[in-house]
Amino acid sequence: MMNIAVFGTGMVGDTIGSKLIELGHSVMIGSRTKDNEKAQAFVAKHAGKATAGTFADAAAFAEIIFNCTAGAGSIDALKMAGEQNIDGKIIIDVSNPLDFSKGMPPSLSVVNTNSLGEEIQKTFPQAKVVKTLNTMWCGLMVNPAMINDGDHHVFLGGNDAAAKEEVKKMLKSFGWLEKNIIDLGDITTSRGTEMYLPLWLRIWGATNNGAFNIKIVS
Amino acid sequence: MMNIAVFGTGMVGDTIGSKLIELGHSVMIGSRTKDNEKAQAFVAKHAGKATAGTFADAAAFAEIIFNCTAGAGSIDALKMAGEQNIDGKIIIDVSNPLDFSKGMPPSLSVVNTNSLGEEIQKTFPQAKVVKTLNTMWCGLMVNPAMINDGDHHVFLGGNDAAAKEEVKKMLKSFGWLEKNIIDLGDITTSRGTEMYLPLWLRIWGATNNGAFNIKIVS
Repeated sequence: MMNIAVFGTGMVGDTIGSKLIELGHSVMIGSRTKDNEKAQAFVAKHAGKATAGTFADAAAFAEIIFNCTAGAGSIDALKMAGEQNIDGKIIIDVSNPLDFSKGMPPSLSVVNTNSLGEEIQKTFPQAKVVKTLNTMWCGLMVNPAMINDGDHHVFLGGNDAAAKEEVKKMLKSFGWLEKNIIDLGDITTSRGTEMYLPLWLRIWGATNNGAFNIKIVS
Repeated sequence: MMNIAVFGTGMVGDTIGSKLIELGHSVMIGSRTKDNEKAQAFVAKHAGKATAGTFADAAAFAEIIFNCTAGAGSIDALKMAGEQNIDGKIIIDVSNPLDFSKGMPPSLSVVNTNSLGEEIQKTFPQAKVVKTLNTMWCGLMVNPAMINDGDHHVFLGGNDAAAKEEVKKMLKSFGWLEKNIIDLGDITTSRGTEMYLPLWLRIWGATNNGAFNIKIVS
């Protein structure tokens, strides 16, 4: 069992954090301020198994950092955590660079030859960034068996092979089948998974159901 | 049976054109010049059932235009065909705005708040542009049963409901199951399907198999 920081107090952070606690990990929710209301509510909900602190507190506490902040604030949140608390650690980045400033559906703030996953890796060259889980609704991230007997796909990208193995283990503990975890390659593959979001949003819009995922068939 | 123009003499045009002929349609391959070698080879291969001409010849001949040109040249090709030969007709746009100028994998020349499908519609406001089939290898476009008993998804987007119904019929004649054709909405949904390409390319790169598609499971 590990000490894990969950950055972000939204639905994604709550879902990931709750699952990690269910699996027996110690979780510290990180946010801008120690007394963030949502973080305090999370701690109260998981009495004795979760704590809350600043991004820096949570990163210092953790062996692994889950970035569940909104993409537009991810780099700032990680900078607030401080290099000294991040270097050498695995950052599991589930965020997407969604830009809501140009109306709905949101567009992406980085595309084509860059991605948020890469930006995080470039900002913290000593961290081991692994991009994963960003292609689905958070409910499915931690409970793939909810649909199609868990037979659908999750992607993985990052520069550090050992870190990706660690994250694979984590995904399996969430219920993902080995055969359904596709290692796309290095962190530049974040471009692919992030740029899938506009299609994801359109499928959601057409079907009115966010609890879907894609299965690669061949 | 219809008169159909296939714009583009590459693998996609050849595959779509051959399928249309197999289905009994009359096909004219359109390219920049009347004597394009690949177009001539196509005509020879389908003796008596196919003809070749300029983009303008093919568009004038056709009730429906399949845009199978490379995305970077699609607008030019359609402009060469001439508004008078295009207006009022259905353009089935299977192209993607791939930009190879920034290295591999290619990036997209239009993203986020625009797409090639929309550009074509804006350039020819009197045409009925339907974006479809651009999310897979051309072999699967016309033979979905090749994998997973044909049980995987194709998307559709366009502003004209009747045109989309026509294209749905065409897709069914290619072997697509009604339940696997997802109408995403208007032509702006091309943003979603085009922006999926970078993920498609990464999956292809990771699996070394282009004969795959996605199935939406929920």
